[in-house]
Amino acid sequence: MPQEYQEPGALICDLARSFYDLGWVSGTGGGICLRDGDRVVVAPSGVQKERMRPEQMFAIGLDGALLARPDDPALRPSECSALFLKAINLRGAGAVIHSHSIHAVMATLLFDAEFSVSHLEMIKGISGHAYGDRLVVPIIENTARECDLAEALGEAIVAWPRTHAVLVRRHGAYIWGADWIAAKTHAECYDYLFRAAVEMRRAGIPTVMQGGTDDASVSTGRAGTANRT
Amino acid sequence: MPQEYQEPGALICDLARSFYDLGWVSGTGGGICLRDGDRVVVAPSGVQKERMRPEQMFAIGLDGALLARPDDPALRPSECSALFLKAINLRGAGAVIHSHSIHAVMATLLFDAEFSVSHLEMIKGISGHAYGDRLVVPIIENTARECDLAEALGEAIVAWPRTHAVLVRRHGAYIWGADWIAAKTHAECYDYLFRAAVEMRRAGIPTVMQGGTDDASVSTGRAGTANRT
Amino acid sequence: MPQEYQEPGALICDLARSFYDLGWVSGTGGGICLRDGDRVVVAPSGVQKERMRPEQMFAIGLDGALLARPDDPALRPSECSALFLKAINLRGAGAVIHSHSIHAVMATLLFDAEFSVSHLEMIKGISGHAYGDRLVVPIIENTARECDLAEALGEAIVAWPRTHAVLVRRHGAYIWGADWIAAKTHAECYDYLFRAAVEMRRAGIPTVMQGGTDDASVSTGRAGTANRT
Amino acid sequence: MPQEYQEPGALICDLARSFYDLGWVSGTGGGICLRDGDRVVVAPSGVQKERMRPEQMFAIGLDGALLARPDDPALRPSECSALFLKAINLRGAGAVIHSHSIHAVMATLLFDAEFSVSHLEMIKGISGHAYGDRLVVPIIENTARECDLAEALGEAIVAWPRTHAVLVRRHGAYIWGADWIAAKTHAECYDYLFRAAVEMRRAGIPTVMQGGTDDASVSTGRAGTANRT
Repeated sequence: MPQEYQEPGALICDLARSFYDLGWVSGTGGGICLRDGDRVVVAPSGVQKERMRPEQMFAIGLDGALLARPDDPALRPSECSALFLKAINLRGAGAVIHSHSIHAVMATLLFDAEFSVSHLEMIKGISGHAYGDRLVVPIIENTARECDLAEALGEAIVAWPRTHAVLVRRHGAYIWGADWIAAKTHAECYDYLFRAAVEMRRAGIPTVMQGGTDDASVSTGRAGTANRT
Repeated sequence: MPQEYQEPGALICDLARSFYDLGWVSGTGGGICLRDGDRVVVAPSGVQKERMRPEQMFAIGLDGALLARPDDPALRPSECSALFLKAINLRGAGAVIHSHSIHAVMATLLFDAEFSVSHLEMIKGISGHAYGDRLVVPIIENTARECDLAEALGEAIVAWPRTHAVLVRRHGAYIWGADWIAAKTHAECYDYLFRAAVEMRRAGIPTVMQGGTDDASVSTGRAGTANRT
Repeated sequence: MPQEYQEPGALICDLARSFYDLGWVSGTGGGICLRDGDRVVVAPSGVQKERMRPEQMFAIGLDGALLARPDDPALRPSECSALFLKAINLRGAGAVIHSHSIHAVMATLLFDAEFSVSHLEMIKGISGHAYGDRLVVPIIENTARECDLAEALGEAIVAWPRTHAVLVRRHGAYIWGADWIAAKTHAECYDYLFRAAVEMRRAGIPTVMQGGTDDASVSTGRAGTANRT
Repeated sequence: MPQEYQEPGALICDLARSFYDLGWVSGTGGGICLRDGDRVVVAPSGVQKERMRPEQMFAIGLDGALLARPDDPALRPSECSALFLKAINLRGAGAVIHSHSIHAVMATLLFDAEFSVSHLEMIKGISGHAYGDRLVVPIIENTARECDLAEALGEAIVAWPRTHAVLVRRHGAYIWGADWIAAKTHAECYDYLFRAAVEMRRAGIPTVMQGGTDDASVSTGRAGTANRT
């Protein structure tokens, strides 16, 4: 790995500051988790994302069990934990980013069941996708409580086996990768594509071109209904 | 409180620099105050917001009386002080932010007496609000002098008991919270919602969905006229 | 003056870095000068604005005579110098900012001979203007060479005695103030107003309201033709 | 040269961080190379652009031969290398920037074979161009693999002898200059012009005015077909 090693808690704090500057996490929204062997390091809930400190982190097991907690008794683990674990357990993700980017939210307001674009170079930054592919991201409906999203998120992950992201209507996106670098790269590419698609729609330009190299729904998008859990 | 303690004057300088980068305070506009026991720490008027120093701060009482002033005789306390005290005295706010964000101003140009949105995840970041609620922010008319806004601001605070913000037409917004963290979180969420609503209007998408869980004007928005002072 | 003293050359470098981040100066465009007694400190031409160093500055007299130059023989003083001197000599400006902000350029494409807005709080940040005033900024036509703008700029400064800025069509703006703080505050307010007017036009909202308190062209805008030089 | 000398590898890392903040490089996309005598210093492929380190750089010859590589065996040189060499060998470029800016991509979606603007001051920042010139940037079609772009890029460089940039449809732009300062200045000016043209189109304003001083296709744009390689 060409990047210098950083302790997971410190790395989460560092990334969260940079995601705050990008507009992905703010208010009480958004977050990130990192897998570290059999542990998953997650930030506390309701703490300002750009001002977190490494000693405030929680560690949970792959089954969600609490393994370690910060000294401060007022802190609780992120409400996203159950959702983060879906991508970790169903896809082997090493890191998951939850973004409240306005580009993601606008994309969910302009597309129905699936976000899709084709023929944009940035698509190549998403693992397993080529330039001419139709890139599809499933959109699930939001729920009143974040933990109630877990089941629908898990179903979408299974039903769209090629995706590395799930959009949540009027809410944001969950984006993952094999390690934190892949997750961050995916998040940058997806956010760019959400923004580009919104601007293309505004300019009256179709977001999917005819004649893509990989346009069949089985291979690019949703798996057959027989595969759904 | 999971955040490290900072002396109020230093914290105001730190936050003002970050609000400058967000476009909430600039020119001579915008500001922030922090309650510290029975004192309220306020910045001077007409000083560049991103270059203030802790020794330039004023302290006033909850009745507006001047308790402490900086050595520099040229400095005067912020013209927002009377407005800040409305939120502090009528709502027990621990911090108040005055934003000139262009998203707030554009929202006041696109909505009439009330700004309202529903079914956006960021609404959950506003205390006392759920995802499906109709979030309402009253809009008061601007006045030639900032101090003349105080009465209308106080009336709106009383008439809309669930709001944590008041928009001022063609001017900006006053946003508060129980402490500086809550006020800053509210400001981030409201600003996001102002921007999202402007983009939704531009795209022809209604900002309020039918069937919200909390759509009655009594509970979400303006109190009955009998309650008005 | 409540700000800490900075040596003019160092202050220019500091401000230019911050204006680069705001998008006001980039490429080879934009700049700033500061008056220091009978000298005017100006940056070199064609140097990257965000990477200038204090020892690269020039000093010129109020008549444009070169008083001091950097050791590096390859450097020439900014091509804006003759334009900067117009605001200094005709208005007593202590600092002049030349911005290439895209908001300024878009404003010159959407307005004819004059940019005008009224009833926006940020107007109060421009010296001598109240909230209900019609704020007017003259727009002069661009020329192939920057030095050829000086005469038209001087005429506009005389003909619009209340303005602290002149827009240059398809080019940008010259903005000044009594000292660097006033010039920077004006530049922040004008840039905000240029952006707001562009967004208002896009949304179909008039930029000037009827019934302003100060709508006569003599007092807010252009002086009578008899006053023109 | 008025800038302080920086070792090429360190300079690439420094510039890449700043281009990341500008949105020109992100995900796995975009990059920069610097010529250093008979060597060209290029960054590795697939590394986060804003977190690169000088010891990760490659050096290649003007014929593409690998001259030096980093110790880390997992690193491979940027896939842009063959494209960078086109501008270096055909135009004597000292630095080449590959941008994924969304403004560049939107410009390729709104123009056909050529991007063109005239009468914008920022055009003067492009070497060899005056304010009234029609600035033309050829647009080549994207390919599935980045290395397959090299031939079309080389042809465009030859066919449009006055350009310092080539746009790649739905992908981004390659921009160069005589040294890194000229390349960066060109990149800032071109990106500004791409954005301005997109905003002008959105507002219904033509991007080229009649009566430019240099409107003939031979002198401003594409060379005669006889010149094509």
